[in-house]
Amino acid sequence: MKTPVLFIDKSRVRQNYRDLKAAFPDFRICYAIKSNSHSGMIEILKAEGSHFETASLGEIKHLKSLGVAGDEIILSNPVKAPEMIAGALAEGVTVMSFDAVEELQKFLPYREKAKLVLRIAVPNEGSLWPLSGKFGSPEYLWDDIFEFMQNNSLDLYGVTFHPGSQGELAVAWDAAMRIAWRCIDEARDYYQLNPVCLNIGGGFPVDLGRPIPSIKEIADVVYEHLHYWAEHEGYKPQELICEPGRFISGSAGYLVSKVVGVARREKNWVFLDSGVFCGMMETIDGITYPLKTTGVGTKERVILCGPSCDSVDKMFETEIPTPQTGDKIWFQGAGAYTTVYASTFNGFEPPTVAYLENIDNPDELFKLVD
Amino acid sequence: MKTPVLFIDKSRVRQNYRDLKAAFPDFRICYAIKSNSHSGMIEILKAEGSHFETASLGEIKHLKSLGVAGDEIILSNPVKAPEMIAGALAEGVTVMSFDAVEELQKFLPYREKAKLVLRIAVPNEGSLWPLSGKFGSPEYLWDDIFEFMQNNSLDLYGVTFHPGSQGELAVAWDAAMRIAWRCIDEARDYYQLNPVCLNIGGGFPVDLGRPIPSIKEIADVVYEHLHYWAEHEGYKPQELICEPGRFISGSAGYLVSKVVGVARREKNWVFLDSGVFCGMMETIDGITYPLKTTGVGTKERVILCGPSCDSVDKMFETEIPTPQTGDKIWFQGAGAYTTVYASTFNGFEPPTVAYLENIDNPDELFKLVD
Repeated sequence: MKTPVLFIDKSRVRQNYRDLKAAFPDFRICYAIKSNSHSGMIEILKAEGSHFETASLGEIKHLKSLGVAGDEIILSNPVKAPEMIAGALAEGVTVMSFDAVEELQKFLPYREKAKLVLRIAVPNEGSLWPLSGKFGSPEYLWDDIFEFMQNNSLDLYGVTFHPGSQGELAVAWDAAMRIAWRCIDEARDYYQLNPVCLNIGGGFPVDLGRPIPSIKEIADVVYEHLHYWAEHEGYKPQELICEPGRFISGSAGYLVSKVVGVARREKNWVFLDSGVFCGMMETIDGITYPLKTTGVGTKERVILCGPSCDSVDKMFETEIPTPQTGDKIWFQGAGAYTTVYASTFNGFEPPTVAYLENIDNPDELFKLVD
Repeated sequence: MKTPVLFIDKSRVRQNYRDLKAAFPDFRICYAIKSNSHSGMIEILKAEGSHFETASLGEIKHLKSLGVAGDEIILSNPVKAPEMIAGALAEGVTVMSFDAVEELQKFLPYREKAKLVLRIAVPNEGSLWPLSGKFGSPEYLWDDIFEFMQNNSLDLYGVTFHPGSQGELAVAWDAAMRIAWRCIDEARDYYQLNPVCLNIGGGFPVDLGRPIPSIKEIADVVYEHLHYWAEHEGYKPQELICEPGRFISGSAGYLVSKVVGVARREKNWVFLDSGVFCGMMETIDGITYPLKTTGVGTKERVILCGPSCDSVDKMFETEIPTPQTGDKIWFQGAGAYTTVYASTFNGFEPPTVAYLENIDNPDELFKLVD
C-alpha cells in the first residue's frame, strides 16, 4: 500500500461508541460525520446502532447512499440555504437546528414537517476551538424568537447547545445545562411552547496529552441537571441527543506517512508525504499527534512539514531518531478532522483509508505500507 | 448555473501573461500551476506559449494529460521523494531544484539526465507569505553542496531563489540578485561548476489594495543586475526562468457566491455558500477581496462566513447593503489559491469553474447564476 494511509481501528471505533453510550444511556447518539465521513466509518457506526449528525444536503445524500434512513439523521447546521431545508425534508430528515428569526422565516412553508431545535449560545470555556459567535442565539434574543414562533404557529421541538470542540472543562457542560434550562423554562412559561428534545451537542474531549475530564465526569454533570429538572421542575425531555465526532473517530485513526526528504540547516527540516493540505490541517491550529518513526540513532529536534511548496505547509516541531528519506512514521489519534479537510493541492493526493480489526501495536502498520 | 462559481476571464489571463512577458522578454515563463491548476487555465496559457512549474508527479501527469511536453515543465520542489524524481525524468521533465546535500544523493543515479538547480535562501522582506526556512540553502552551506557535486561528478545547471509569495517590495529582488551572484561566482571560481540557468522564482505581487511595485519596476531591478553581470563579470545566463502563479491567475478570477442565511446578534453574521474550506482558504491568513452584492439599502457591518459548522470557517468583516438570504455576491481577484485549496468538508462542494472571454462588468455575472 502506498503512503500516506489512514488506518482505522474498527474495534476502537466501536469501543468509543460504546463508552459514550454507557455514559449517556438515554441519549440518541448522532455521530457528527464532519469529523470523518468515510463510508467504512459510517458502516461500522450504523451497525452499532448510531444515528448521524449532518450539516448539508451533501452529507445527507452520502448517508442515504449508505443505507441510513432519514429518521436516523439530524441536520444541526443552524443556517441552511432554503434548498437545503426542502432537500432534507424530501430525504426524510426532520430534526433541524436554527438560531435566528431570519432562519425561522425559511420554515414557514414546512410548519407541519420540520422539528425545530433552537441552538442557544453557551460559554465555550475550556474548548480548544470555541464556536460561540458564529452560532447560537444569546438569551436577549429568545423573546424575539419565541414571539415569532407563536405568531407564526411554529412549534419548538427542542433546545440545543454546543460547548465547543475538544472541551477540556466539565464545568462548561454545567454552565450550558443551566442556560438550556432558562431557555426551556421561558419557552414553556411565557410562550406555551413545549420543547421535548434536548440536544447537548458534541465537543467531548479526546486525549491530546493535556488534562481532560472523562466522558463519565461530563455525563455526571449533564445527568445531575436532568435529574434536578425531573424532580424539581417536573420536566423530562422525551428525546435526548448528543453529537460526538472526534470522540468516536479521533483515537481510532493512525496516519502512516513516509519521509520524502531531509534538509539540515539552522533547523532540521523533515519532509513527509502527508502535510497540512493532505490530511494534517489541524496542525496549523496547534494540534500535535503522538508519533513514532522507523528511524534509528540519537534523537534530533526537527520540524515536520508537508510535501508541497507552500510556506503554510509546516506541521510541528518534535524529536525523532536521525531522520532519513524513506523512514516511515505513524501519527496516533488522526482519525478525526484529517482526511475530511484534505484537498489535492500541489498535486498531492489525500491519504487512502484502510480498516483493520484491531491495532494493538501500531508498529505493525509499518509492514503494511511500501 | 449553481453557486458557487469561479468565473475566469480568459482575456485577463492572457493579458497578465503578456504583461509579464513584456517585462521579462528574455525569460522562459513557467506558470506555477499550484495557484490554479484547472485544465482551462492550462489550455489558455499553453496557447500563449507558457511553460509550467510543478511540485509533484501529480501535477506533471495532469499537464501531460493536457498535451504539455516534458521539456515545457520544470519541477521546482526542492525536496522530492525518490519516486518523484524517477517519475519526472520518465515524463521528460529534467530541470529540477534542490537545496541540500541530502537531496543531491537521490540524483546520483541520474547524473546524465537531471538538470540540477540550486535553490538558495534569500530574504523574504515585504512578502505576505515568506518562504524562507522551509526552503533554500543559506550561504554557509554552499561549500558543502558544491564539494559534494564536485566529488560526485554532478553538474550544477543553475541557481534559483524565491522572494516569497506576494512580494510587496522591489528591493527584495535586488537583495536576491546580489545573493544569487555570490552563489554563481563561488560555484564558478572555486568549484569549476558552470551554472548556465537563473530562475528568479515567483512571488510577483497583485493588487490587494496595498501599495505594490509594478512588474516593470521589479523587472528593472532584475535586469540591472543581469546587465551588470554581463558587462562587468562577463557572465550571461543561457537560460532565464520565472515562475509566476498568482500574478497570472489571481486577478482573472471572480468567485460568485450566494447568501444562504443571516443571523443578527451582537454582530451581523452573513453565511455564504462558499467559505474557508470550499475556496476561500486564504481569508484565514488575512486576505480580503473586493466584493459587491445584489443587496440594497443602507450598508451594514457584517462578518462573512462559510456554510460549514466549523468555527474556523469565518472569512472577514466588511460592509455591504442590508444582506438577505438569496443575495448574490462576487469576489474579485479570486483566481489564485482558491479552488486548489478546496475540499468537500462538511459536504459542501468546491466552486465549479467557468470561462468567459471578457469580464468587463462583473455585475453581469449575477445573471449567469441561479
